[in-house]
Amino acid sequence: MFDLKVIEAENAKLERDLDKDFDSLGERLDRRGVDIQALVAKAQSFGVAVPSWGTGTGGTRFARFPGGGEPANIFDKLDDCGVIHALTKAAPSVSLHIPWDKADPADLRAKADQHSLSFDAMNSNTFQDQADQMHSYKFGSLTHTDASTRAQAVEHNLECIEIGNKIGSKALTVWIGDGANFPGQTHMGRQFERYLSSMKEIYAGLPDDWRLFSEHKSYEPAFYSTVVQDWGTSLLTAQELGDKAMCLVDLGHHAPNVNIEMIVSRLIHAGKLGGFHFNDSKYGDDDLDSGTIDPYRLFLVWNELVDAEGTPGLDLAHMIDQSHNVTDPIESLMVSAMEIQRAFVQACLVDREALAGYQSDNDALMASATLRAAFRTEVDPILAKARQLSGGAISPVTAFRASGYRTGVTERRPQVNGAGGGIV
Amino acid sequence: MFDLKVIEAENAKLERDLDKDFDSLGERLDRRGVDIQALVAKAQSFGVAVPSWGTGTGGTRFARFPGGGEPANIFDKLDDCGVIHALTKAAPSVSLHIPWDKADPADLRAKADQHSLSFDAMNSNTFQDQADQMHSYKFGSLTHTDASTRAQAVEHNLECIEIGNKIGSKALTVWIGDGANFPGQTHMGRQFERYLSSMKEIYAGLPDDWRLFSEHKSYEPAFYSTVVQDWGTSLLTAQELGDKAMCLVDLGHHAPNVNIEMIVSRLIHAGKLGGFHFNDSKYGDDDLDSGTIDPYRLFLVWNELVDAEGTPGLDLAHMIDQSHNVTDPIESLMVSAMEIQRAFVQACLVDREALAGYQSDNDALMASATLRAAFRTEVDPILAKARQLSGGAISPVTAFRASGYRTGVTERRPQVNGAGGGIV
Amino acid sequence: MFDLKVIEAENAKLERDLDKDFDSLGERLDRRGVDIQALVAKAQSFGVAVPSWGTGTGGTRFARFPGGGEPANIFDKLDDCGVIHALTKAAPSVSLHIPWDKADPADLRAKADQHSLSFDAMNSNTFQDQADQMHSYKFGSLTHTDASTRAQAVEHNLECIEIGNKIGSKALTVWIGDGANFPGQTHMGRQFERYLSSMKEIYAGLPDDWRLFSEHKSYEPAFYSTVVQDWGTSLLTAQELGDKAMCLVDLGHHAPNVNIEMIVSRLIHAGKLGGFHFNDSKYGDDDLDSGTIDPYRLFLVWNELVDAEGTPGLDLAHMIDQSHNVTDPIESLMVSAMEIQRAFVQACLVDREALAGYQSDNDALMASATLRAAFRTEVDPILAKARQLSGGAISPVTAFRASGYRTGVTERRPQVNGAGGGIV
Amino acid sequence: MFDLKVIEAENAKLERDLDKDFDSLGERLDRRGVDIQALVAKAQSFGVAVPSWGTGTGGTRFARFPGGGEPANIFDKLDDCGVIHALTKAAPSVSLHIPWDKADPADLRAKADQHSLSFDAMNSNTFQDQADQMHSYKFGSLTHTDASTRAQAVEHNLECIEIGNKIGSKALTVWIGDGANFPGQTHMGRQFERYLSSMKEIYAGLPDDWRLFSEHKSYEPAFYSTVVQDWGTSLLTAQELGDKAMCLVDLGHHAPNVNIEMIVSRLIHAGKLGGFHFNDSKYGDDDLDSGTIDPYRLFLVWNELVDAEGTPGLDLAHMIDQSHNVTDPIESLMVSAMEIQRAFVQACLVDREALAGYQSDNDALMASATLRAAFRTEVDPILAKARQLSGGAISPVTAFRASGYRTGVTERRPQVNGAGGGIV
Repeated sequence: MFDLKVIEAENAKLERDLDKDFDSLGERLDRRGVDIQALVAKAQSFGVAVPSWGTGTGGTRFARFPGGGEPANIFDKLDDCGVIHALTKAAPSVSLHIPWDKADPADLRAKADQHSLSFDAMNSNTFQDQADQMHSYKFGSLTHTDASTRAQAVEHNLECIEIGNKIGSKALTVWIGDGANFPGQTHMGRQFERYLSSMKEIYAGLPDDWRLFSEHKSYEPAFYSTVVQDWGTSLLTAQELGDKAMCLVDLGHHAPNVNIEMIVSRLIHAGKLGGFHFNDSKYGDDDLDSGTIDPYRLFLVWNELVDAEGTPGLDLAHMIDQSHNVTDPIESLMVSAMEIQRAFVQACLVDREALAGYQSDNDALMASATLRAAFRTEVDPILAKARQLSGGAISPVTAFRASGYRTGVTERRPQVNGAGGGIV
Repeated sequence: MFDLKVIEAENAKLERDLDKDFDSLGERLDRRGVDIQALVAKAQSFGVAVPSWGTGTGGTRFARFPGGGEPANIFDKLDDCGVIHALTKAAPSVSLHIPWDKADPADLRAKADQHSLSFDAMNSNTFQDQADQMHSYKFGSLTHTDASTRAQAVEHNLECIEIGNKIGSKALTVWIGDGANFPGQTHMGRQFERYLSSMKEIYAGLPDDWRLFSEHKSYEPAFYSTVVQDWGTSLLTAQELGDKAMCLVDLGHHAPNVNIEMIVSRLIHAGKLGGFHFNDSKYGDDDLDSGTIDPYRLFLVWNELVDAEGTPGLDLAHMIDQSHNVTDPIESLMVSAMEIQRAFVQACLVDREALAGYQSDNDALMASATLRAAFRTEVDPILAKARQLSGGAISPVTAFRASGYRTGVTERRPQVNGAGGGIV
Repeated sequence: MFDLKVIEAENAKLERDLDKDFDSLGERLDRRGVDIQALVAKAQSFGVAVPSWGTGTGGTRFARFPGGGEPANIFDKLDDCGVIHALTKAAPSVSLHIPWDKADPADLRAKADQHSLSFDAMNSNTFQDQADQMHSYKFGSLTHTDASTRAQAVEHNLECIEIGNKIGSKALTVWIGDGANFPGQTHMGRQFERYLSSMKEIYAGLPDDWRLFSEHKSYEPAFYSTVVQDWGTSLLTAQELGDKAMCLVDLGHHAPNVNIEMIVSRLIHAGKLGGFHFNDSKYGDDDLDSGTIDPYRLFLVWNELVDAEGTPGLDLAHMIDQSHNVTDPIESLMVSAMEIQRAFVQACLVDREALAGYQSDNDALMASATLRAAFRTEVDPILAKARQLSGGAISPVTAFRASGYRTGVTERRPQVNGAGGGIV
Repeated sequence: MFDLKVIEAENAKLERDLDKDFDSLGERLDRRGVDIQALVAKAQSFGVAVPSWGTGTGGTRFARFPGGGEPANIFDKLDDCGVIHALTKAAPSVSLHIPWDKADPADLRAKADQHSLSFDAMNSNTFQDQADQMHSYKFGSLTHTDASTRAQAVEHNLECIEIGNKIGSKALTVWIGDGANFPGQTHMGRQFERYLSSMKEIYAGLPDDWRLFSEHKSYEPAFYSTVVQDWGTSLLTAQELGDKAMCLVDLGHHAPNVNIEMIVSRLIHAGKLGGFHFNDSKYGDDDLDSGTIDPYRLFLVWNELVDAEGTPGLDLAHMIDQSHNVTDPIESLMVSAMEIQRAFVQACLVDREALAGYQSDNDALMASATLRAAFRTEVDPILAKARQLSGGAISPVTAFRASGYRTGVTERRPQVNGAGGGIV
């Protein structure tokens, strides 16, 4: 569907300027003792997973405003993910959400192969009721007071593992909305024990080469208490489950003002950092596009990750988790993947030897300036060159718009009406 | 439908204990120089409006879990509101939301009369697209860059006034979700100017004895900027519109840690406080039941309101605005109305002469203790006696559960499926 | 110095009304199946430690405004603590802060005995430089990059243990301000490792029957990162140190909106809750008087504690930690001790059997109402009766003001000038 | 004292690389249609005021750790400010704080002339008691319940105007810490009326060509309520006072998550934006170095200011307001001035025509990308060239360290001990 020739055509218009900028940046970096080719290689090695649901327009409890060409099923979603990767070469895998993405595993694999995509962590869903579901999750899933409801939720997670196993996934991410809207609604201690008990059943079903990611969130959809409310509870969970259980950090799942890069550092210390859900946030779990609200925070997180490279056992799973309410989801996912990649490359530019010296000397001003110098380096030519060398687009958004892909799918795919939102 | 005899039957079981507790409290208050009968009269005079939409189960962007007997239309909703008022005698009016509550005005009036209900402020809705709508509000309504979309949104508000005028409403509340999810998405200054321009058109259509309420909210559904983000912008709006424009305060629409009772005080100073949307909040616009998270804050707000009683021009419109996700909406609305009434009566108990003295002497400890003494007074017997005298239930929840009303409507009304939530 | 006869004289004026209110409350509680005498016994058993430094006027970085009769040394402070306990019978112990409270142990014990006081947890201080100090803590103490500075800070903590051991204390509380004001100023991972290493040295010096409390705080005095920033890091610390290491929770040391009672629950689950620093907070570590900003939150914390009573190994140390900037510190400490006691007694009133039933049935409305019913019970007569029976004052503030104690110490103790505040 | 030759010597080492980078950037900007020389001129025209108190080491309520060569008086401070401006050419004026900076006006002018400095807004101080002060500000200053105390505070502000008038200042900035630590401590409405009344007296004493800046702050030193708590109250104040009264925005004086650039936009709309206090903030009024925590937020503020250039009546006063606790204050002020200048130049780079088009088309992705493209432009060569052309240092920190100035003043100026902090 997506015509790859558009990449070639669009790149041709930009190559000369790119080469000029690349050479000029190379010279400046050389003066700082940095080899630009090594950074290009770093950028080429980078990849972040795209969530299948991110290819559709998101919404709030108030409304959802679909765009044209909304994907109707997982195969449409994989097509869109294919475009994202073809243009950016930075999004080589897709993370599925069950039950929505359920399909024949062979078909899933075939479609993914067609786009050179692989499957990242599986995501279970017990925060919504499905039409054919016996027990409701209105009052909880893995932590419900009723044993049958918990069993149903455990069973769903085991099914996610089973599906994932058939398509090459190696991890299950568990995020639940369980909690309470009223003080007293639940016994917080016993509810957590039920959670651990359910999670142990899921963990028992995990293949040896899989990992289980526990994801915390401070609030929403529960508005008084949430069972896995912060990294402390996520850590307790991962500790009680065992070596294959790790913690996942989402940039928007914290209380206001929290220093997220410090949580990254603490989880690395504890040997329990499993990966990230990337997005940006101004107020809460806003699920905004990565790097659009506080790009320096994104850099500071990457600074911790790059600093920890080589830590034994550190093997991070990175995924985008955003809600695209007012943009074309494909465009947002492309730009987001590149912004995350940018922060990674900037973090690779930190002069760690100088930094360690300033830290040791308590020269706060120069230590801080050392980080900012890396952050401020205009790495666009590096990112563009990496894409070009990998067969992607120098300017993915320009190429995408030139391709007419959105118009095409808008014509082909069934129209979605504007209903939705939790308030009616 | 609702059998009023249940009230009598249930009250009979509780009257003796109530009288005993009432007398004992009366004696204790008498010692403090307070006349309990005057407080009963105060409690009887209290009323808060119920939002029509509050009678249905609410939800979040993740899911909505309907209960049994969900109201299918405005007449069902008015029936439910009738029960709330019959039992609590504290919720004598209903606030409609257009377009959902559109119906023949005569039918609306007839149904309301049947339940001794009146109509409070009208609420327009331009944060969702309706099926038959020409211009989408995806990128804004009253502030849209496109003039036709703005005109459509203005027109909708004028229609709300027209409907309200026919059913005895005297106010229009305007809350819009317009804003931006990205820095740069909108020009914040010009967007505000478009808002003011649209609001002036609406204001021009306001009957002389009506008021226009401007309601601010810090975020959601827009997650970077919101046009009317705080009381400062709401005040600017009300100032530019004119005397009939007032500001409405919702307890959950503020940034974290904000002192809301101080905003109340400032708006009273400015002559621009128009009323309230009551609920409770732990994180954001959680729309939790009033008085369940921070009851002292609710009291402190009422302390400002009672203190300001008699201020020339002060005429407040009070409404409940909550989302009942895990409770029976009728029960939550009854309890909430009574919790708001409780805070009002507690605030009436503040010894304002003593307080003024402590404030004048900078005796912070005793001033603070004076407020807490009023807050801690167990006013349940006063509230129960007021209900009893007005023909309501001593214990509304007990009576409601005894009535079998929910079972009845669950059988009669069509079942609603669990779909919903902005994420799919 | 403090004339105990004033208690008798003041109580005489209030006894009759107290008895009347006590009987009336007893009857109401009896109807709920609650034995008021048992609650009086509970209240009498309650005690919270007073921080020695709390008896002086506190301040901010902007200014400190001392009052009359500021204590000049630890013996003056113990005299003030003696008054607090004599009147309230709820503050039987004192927590010392070294180096300020250093004195001959025998003299300390003698003065404490004179007032029937004991010594609670010792508090070290490495967030300020002392005049005779070799290494500065400007860039950290237990986490400093310089080994000698760390050794000095460790040594100071060991000295605190030694002093405490001689006066009957059984715990050391460690709170440090170490952190950073700039991203990059410190390597967060290595800084934490230095912290653990220093703490292990302190832990090694702990007597067998002592405990080590780790106290977290989200920010201030460090404004970018703080080494022990939240309960997760505090937990990691306590886990790595060993069985005698526990976590301490201060109500004002959390990020905005955080559910503190849930942290209490999680630490109880982990077997690592050691105790509390009580105060109240609206914005941050405001150190306001307990129960004056959000009394329901204080109750919810106590609800968890009372619920957990009997948990094996649970042995909590409770201390007030407040800054009295605009009140008489003795009055604030008395009222605060009683407000904490109030929340404890209210929590004892929760009908836990009914609550468990509502929780099991997911009857959120009634579960929530059950907690509020306990919170709203006017337990003043219980608290007053407990004080009276223990020899304290029915109305401590009234008795204190009648005693003339403040005037006396203002005359006797040297005047303190108004200097202070970190900005000059 | 400061040897200007060091600038020349240090610049000589860097000129060649600067010219190369400048040319290369010029070429890239030329391709975007931007004239680099115009931006150099913009950068040269930039200036921000330095607060006299910023040259000393700051602190918190816990401690203050002075460095070497702390300025002992206003003349030392002006010497330090002179160095800052000589090296950066971006800090041409100084803002005085009375009473600390009181001195003979002729001497002040002479010292300022020596360094080519002028005097910016005067700052009054009524949040601390001075040794010779008749009435204490413990319970307020301009809002005190006692008329004599208010009169004293008014008088102090009038004196600030008088001093300022003699040294060429044209504005008075009023920030007060007045508020309350307890609900009920003050009557919030009457306290605000006293504030307005006092401010009117000050306003009456304002020369015709002066302006009065009202500065809000959400909390600290008052921890329950603050009289001028947000921009809404600041606006009300400026409106009631008159045309010469304007609002001042400090980046750290807002509630968590607040969109500050939107407040800028609203105050511009209202014709009441007077200026800024620059710093950075992670938690509250942290007074961290500008641009070190969230540089994109600083850019977004400047984006509003540059966008509004040319608005009739807009004449902004910009000052740095920081607390340098762990760095050399001179270095922090130099870097901060340059970071603010950087954000200004980046904002000048925004392609406003393209942006307006994207906004008009609701192309949120491209609008957002347009802002980020400007923010990401590495403008260091422009800033360095502007400094070089104006006679400043290409690398001010390097030149400062090479100059030996700090060592010199450490030897010459009296040593300051480490006392301080509001808690003792």
